[in-house]
Amino acid sequence: MSDDSTVKSGFTRRDLLGNTAKVATLAGLSGGAMAGGLTALSLPISANAAEPGKGEVRPGELDEYYGFWSSGQGGEVRIVGVPSMREFMRIPVFNRCSASGWGQTNESLKILSDGLLPATKEYLSTRGGTWMNGDAHHPHMSFTDGTYDGRYIFINDKANTRVARIRCDVMKVDKVIEIPNAADIHGMRPQKYPRTGYVFANGEHRVPIPNDGSVLDDPSKYHSVFTAIDGDTMTVSWQVIVDGNLDNCDADYQGLYAFSTCYNSEEGVTLEDMTANEQDWAVVFDIKAIEAGVKKGDFKKISGVAVLDGRKGSPYTRYIPVSTSPHGCNTAPDGRHVMIAGKLSPTVTVIDVTRLPDLFADKIGPRDCVVAEPELGLGPLHTAFDNKGNAYTTLFLDSQIVKWNIDKAVRAFKGEKVDPIIDKVDVQYQPGHNHTSMGETKEADGKWLVSLNKFSKDRFLNVGPIKPENEQLIDISGDKKLVVVHDGPTYAEPHDCIIVRADIVNPKSVWDRNDPVWEEARKWAIKDGVDLDWGEDVIRDGNKVRVYMYSVAPKFSLEKFTVKQGDEVTIFITNMDDVDDLAHGFTLGNYGIAFEIAPQATASVTFIADRPGVHWFYCQWFCHALHMEMRGRMLVEPRAV
Amino acid sequence: MSDDSTVKSGFTRRDLLGNTAKVATLAGLSGGAMAGGLTALSLPISANAAEPGKGEVRPGELDEYYGFWSSGQGGEVRIVGVPSMREFMRIPVFNRCSASGWGQTNESLKILSDGLLPATKEYLSTRGGTWMNGDAHHPHMSFTDGTYDGRYIFINDKANTRVARIRCDVMKVDKVIEIPNAADIHGMRPQKYPRTGYVFANGEHRVPIPNDGSVLDDPSKYHSVFTAIDGDTMTVSWQVIVDGNLDNCDADYQGLYAFSTCYNSEEGVTLEDMTANEQDWAVVFDIKAIEAGVKKGDFKKISGVAVLDGRKGSPYTRYIPVSTSPHGCNTAPDGRHVMIAGKLSPTVTVIDVTRLPDLFADKIGPRDCVVAEPELGLGPLHTAFDNKGNAYTTLFLDSQIVKWNIDKAVRAFKGEKVDPIIDKVDVQYQPGHNHTSMGETKEADGKWLVSLNKFSKDRFLNVGPIKPENEQLIDISGDKKLVVVHDGPTYAEPHDCIIVRADIVNPKSVWDRNDPVWEEARKWAIKDGVDLDWGEDVIRDGNKVRVYMYSVAPKFSLEKFTVKQGDEVTIFITNMDDVDDLAHGFTLGNYGIAFEIAPQATASVTFIADRPGVHWFYCQWFCHALHMEMRGRMLVEPRAV
Repeated sequence: MSDDSTVKSGFTRRDLLGNTAKVATLAGLSGGAMAGGLTALSLPISANAAEPGKGEVRPGELDEYYGFWSSGQGGEVRIVGVPSMREFMRIPVFNRCSASGWGQTNESLKILSDGLLPATKEYLSTRGGTWMNGDAHHPHMSFTDGTYDGRYIFINDKANTRVARIRCDVMKVDKVIEIPNAADIHGMRPQKYPRTGYVFANGEHRVPIPNDGSVLDDPSKYHSVFTAIDGDTMTVSWQVIVDGNLDNCDADYQGLYAFSTCYNSEEGVTLEDMTANEQDWAVVFDIKAIEAGVKKGDFKKISGVAVLDGRKGSPYTRYIPVSTSPHGCNTAPDGRHVMIAGKLSPTVTVIDVTRLPDLFADKIGPRDCVVAEPELGLGPLHTAFDNKGNAYTTLFLDSQIVKWNIDKAVRAFKGEKVDPIIDKVDVQYQPGHNHTSMGETKEADGKWLVSLNKFSKDRFLNVGPIKPENEQLIDISGDKKLVVVHDGPTYAEPHDCIIVRADIVNPKSVWDRNDPVWEEARKWAIKDGVDLDWGEDVIRDGNKVRVYMYSVAPKFSLEKFTVKQGDEVTIFITNMDDVDDLAHGFTLGNYGIAFEIAPQATASVTFIADRPGVHWFYCQWFCHALHMEMRGRMLVEPRAV
Repeated sequence: MSDDSTVKSGFTRRDLLGNTAKVATLAGLSGGAMAGGLTALSLPISANAAEPGKGEVRPGELDEYYGFWSSGQGGEVRIVGVPSMREFMRIPVFNRCSASGWGQTNESLKILSDGLLPATKEYLSTRGGTWMNGDAHHPHMSFTDGTYDGRYIFINDKANTRVARIRCDVMKVDKVIEIPNAADIHGMRPQKYPRTGYVFANGEHRVPIPNDGSVLDDPSKYHSVFTAIDGDTMTVSWQVIVDGNLDNCDADYQGLYAFSTCYNSEEGVTLEDMTANEQDWAVVFDIKAIEAGVKKGDFKKISGVAVLDGRKGSPYTRYIPVSTSPHGCNTAPDGRHVMIAGKLSPTVTVIDVTRLPDLFADKIGPRDCVVAEPELGLGPLHTAFDNKGNAYTTLFLDSQIVKWNIDKAVRAFKGEKVDPIIDKVDVQYQPGHNHTSMGETKEADGKWLVSLNKFSKDRFLNVGPIKPENEQLIDISGDKKLVVVHDGPTYAEPHDCIIVRADIVNPKSVWDRNDPVWEEARKWAIKDGVDLDWGEDVIRDGNKVRVYMYSVAPKFSLEKFTVKQGDEVTIFITNMDDVDDLAHGFTLGNYGIAFEIAPQATASVTFIADRPGVHWFYCQWFCHALHMEMRGRMLVEPRAV
């Protein structure tokens, strides 16, 4: 029944076991150990038992750190307190949020659609104006001089090829852009020095450029693209085409280079093809050379963006061979070492950034930049750091974190008989990303490590076929031992996180009435001659009706308003309460409309009043003892029949 | 600028302070104390300090209870471990979920739309087929013989007038129904005895019946409706029109009566009107009398439902006067007492169910059913229970929980000089619902109390203009003292919860291949001659294309398939992995499509392939060491131009 254009992926139920074994063999691992979640160790943790109360934050005490968690396919960013591991807040980003109205209010729809590419805008114009899902992997804060500066959190969307920015003053997204010429943004990191500056973003999947259907089943014409976004303007500065598939990335502490792990040097499209070679690469991007290339016009303009050719042999990149299918890419706070995790190899490859100028000058070969390659255990994925020269690598297959010393690894690579491994601790189970407190900055402080584990298995009460992941808090303050102090179940998927000292983050509690978010509302109010702050007006404009209301607990300024069936109605609400935490909400019953209005904010929504009758609106964001009574009526006159 | 049909709510910025004072006066409280969140006490908690580690669940230990939390305007239900207060799982219900594809898959859209009323279906037919928001207030488990039976969780949607049912075997919603003749379902409780049986649901807002626009601004023709849903079939059994606005409800332990708090006996539409009277009511519904009324045809059929007239004077109801605007309604595990919380009065009114037969027989008056009315503090909202005859009432304005003895309150009401109050504890801040472990069943065990507080203020790191709520865990196992042991921030809004002994809940880890959820997929596969389990087929049917795939980690059965631009494509995926926790996902890049496929489940999605080019699909639900490589291509041939 299948036509010629359908290709089965080369395994059947009958040869499945054999095939898994083959893949495992490619990686030099046993078949059983490959099947994540199947054979995880379940050792007792008594050897590493926590002291009771370590990491406890008592009622009324504050946490020391803000954690910013991505949520993977959940599409949001979460704010978590560390070390209490309590989730303080959800920030809707790529998801549709029932509570806040994100993806429904005019203000959020503008943010979500302004930065989309024209073809996407057109596709979505009849489909609600925005995507309702995202795959948010890597949350990172903006940097100044090698450490967090508290301005923004950036986050990628692998599902729909976007990068979003969260304003840390209000903890809301203010920009979302779709990256042209790329497919499925994966690795993403801000420039650390001198500041952000650029946000580097990897288009992971190889596709034709442009991807308009003129090339279809010819993988030799597919490309993966490295993108530099201007973090201030949220526009694309330039792109670089590479060989292979880009995976994770990071930036240096000098403002000279960026790095990406790069797999599928075979440029295949099946699993077997992609893992056939013994080696893939870490790609190094020379930022200054690329900027010079842009300046002198050495690019093609595609979809309005300068695209440079950074494939092998180009002046803009170097390809450092590492074992096949590398994954994590993490720059150490020493400003010198970059860790490339082996994934299918038990090693982490350490690149010394001080050797890169000679590499680009062709004075040394690519492998001459490698200064260590310790064998750490099975399935190394990501590496975090403390302030004492130690690294902490997740071992996916071993279900462990390994603590190792960078200097000793470098000395061992030179031939000295020294063991870089300091300790290993079991985690439950199959860790992916990990992160230490301030660990991706020059202010790494060596206090806490979070291990984001892909499976929780038997660690929590059974909640059905879909299980939580498990994020574990580990005390790394000791000289040697790693101690698991907390198990934290979380909904899909705590993909990655950062842990930021609390003094760096200083949000407002009340919006500034001049905030640009509701600029469009301001323009409409001026046009309609209405005071946006204290509106209690209904403006009819043909079959368009604009309703202006304000809220002061426990009331909306209008008790009722009347429209005609079929009218296009826009409701603007300004919350004139200006007290901390006195948010209101607006729900319009049986019209599917609900959104938040935080103190001193304006929010609006537009809909077609196609349902006649009496529709109550009410405040759904608890505000006052008489909150339940905070409501009014929209009367919709039926269309004449 | 406002037309005649617009009515301002009677206050302006200039007289706002005066007006707030007026409202406060109505309630007999000071203006300052009324403004929730403004004047909350911030007393040190040292007097009630917890012993360190009390309630701690160490890494690897399991919780004793499943907590089922509503999320208010978040629209979902959350599973929380008690006493660890860790969130294990989100169950999407009325919200659109980016991770699971709830609200996008054909299976979820069928569940979300099948039970909607025809007019709503029509409205949504061009708007994605379902609402994207809900306001989920009251989660309650099905009962058998007065205690939880582990079958279902029911939950109301105030925003779009629905009731949903969650299957506890898989922790997924299987039914969502819209309630006809009602507006904005609020209070909702299952029948406790002999079993559920009925699910009682209050239509809170008064609207014309039918609400088709023929009556608009005539509140004298508005009604609030009490609904009995058959919890087995999820169809409406009957409805009863009442006076006033229905608020919260509960059922007895005998299977004879249900109770609702009922405010706005004035039947006004403004805040001032609704709070003008000194007294409102607790309404009692006589289940057997109503069933007999239905049997003998004493109803009007409206929107296909038998609607009985239960206004004052009817044989089906009695109206017991209580102080104005009562709120909480909670039946005690002693099977005898029902607590009606005063909200604007400092009292809880206690009704004795053994007197209700005489009330319905007109042998006694409504107030003769009241056996206690203790004065407990300011703003009593909801009452929970232990197994020792004590009650725990939230005091919204005092920001406290008060522990009091029911028997002593009854004796005091008779004139005995005895103080029913045992202890008060400060909570942070403004508690709404509370709940004890097993406290709404005859198996109440008196171990834990959760207080769901509407404001967190200074208890957590500042996260911007929108703050978390605070759910606090309180140790009630002592004879006297209540001890706060945990502060739990949560996103909007932990409206209500139940706490269920772990042995009662026994979910599956793997779906049964015969599950009815994907019945439609099964029919399509039979029609197309495809093996749904092991599909690797692409069926073209005009401009409709059906793609059948299965997943076994780390592969989908098709590496690629080809469609034409404009085709209506349905993708069916069956996860043939049958190991605990081996869920897969399916994300189709730059098409806004993503959903989960749990072990042994089938899920599907339908979309128009309007974007030409190469589109990668990939597994976004972590499954295997080679999870990132689990992907394939959809090739979309461009439309001829």
